[in-house]
Amino acid sequence: MRLDPIDCRKRMDSSMFGVLGTVDPDRGTHLVPVVFAVSGDQLVVPIDAVKPKGTKQLRRIRNLRSDARASLVVDHRSDDWSDLWWVRADLGFLGTEDYADGWTSRLAIRYPPYREAGTVDSLLLFTIRSLSGWAAS
Amino acid sequence: MRLDPIDCRKRMDSSMFGVLGTVDPDRGTHLVPVVFAVSGDQLVVPIDAVKPKGTKQLRRIRNLRSDARASLVVDHRSDDWSDLWWVRADLGFLGTEDYADGWTSRLAIRYPPYREAGTVDSLLLFTIRSLSGWAAS
Repeated sequence: MRLDPIDCRKRMDSSMFGVLGTVDPDRGTHLVPVVFAVSGDQLVVPIDAVKPKGTKQLRRIRNLRSDARASLVVDHRSDDWSDLWWVRADLGFLGTEDYADGWTSRLAIRYPPYREAGTVDSLLLFTIRSLSGWAAS
Repeated sequence: MRLDPIDCRKRMDSSMFGVLGTVDPDRGTHLVPVVFAVSGDQLVVPIDAVKPKGTKQLRRIRNLRSDARASLVVDHRSDDWSDLWWVRADLGFLGTEDYADGWTSRLAIRYPPYREAGTVDSLLLFTIRSLSGWAAS
């Protein structure tokens, strides 16, 4: 069954992990598991400070600068398929942001590793264009 | 740390759920959680017989017929981030297949719901172009 936007939003808030998809000139689509936080109609994906390649060269960022369209999927998995559900956010990339303001505490509440200073380099900031979702029951 | 292709393959085989990404003319990238099976250098995603829209109209299939490039990500989630890992398969779409031959038993072994006749309509068949992956430790 299709989920209404309010239900989608609640399930997305309660999910700790998602998969981010960006448009990639070579692969068509570039998928990478991420953590995230949502506030109002905005969503952020933190870029960890430890990324060996450095923020500037990350493929997801190169892709987003060429094509601002992205999607984030969260899904609930279970051996009992009547418990399965997923929610997808269609996103527009707004830019990279310093790790500051309200997002710092929002991410630290969701993810204990982020309570330590210096773990996040910067944020990918998105506007949520639409939410859709499905539940088996 | 980066995972070698043999390790990627083992982790993918042991994963029950993944996210499939296809190239979408409107959204840029279309993401949907799926189940799957792998054999040799091929991967299949079953299309359930109960899909209300019917196989022919599914967006993932329309997309794959326009652009054969796809990706599947599996990821291991944990509150202990030192346990995190993921594997990504970059795929080329070969076409839709009847649900038959070796895939029937392969899928039924992995997924008990598929042991019942009539649950799968058809298969999306892909060739695996490359495997890459990452583990926190």
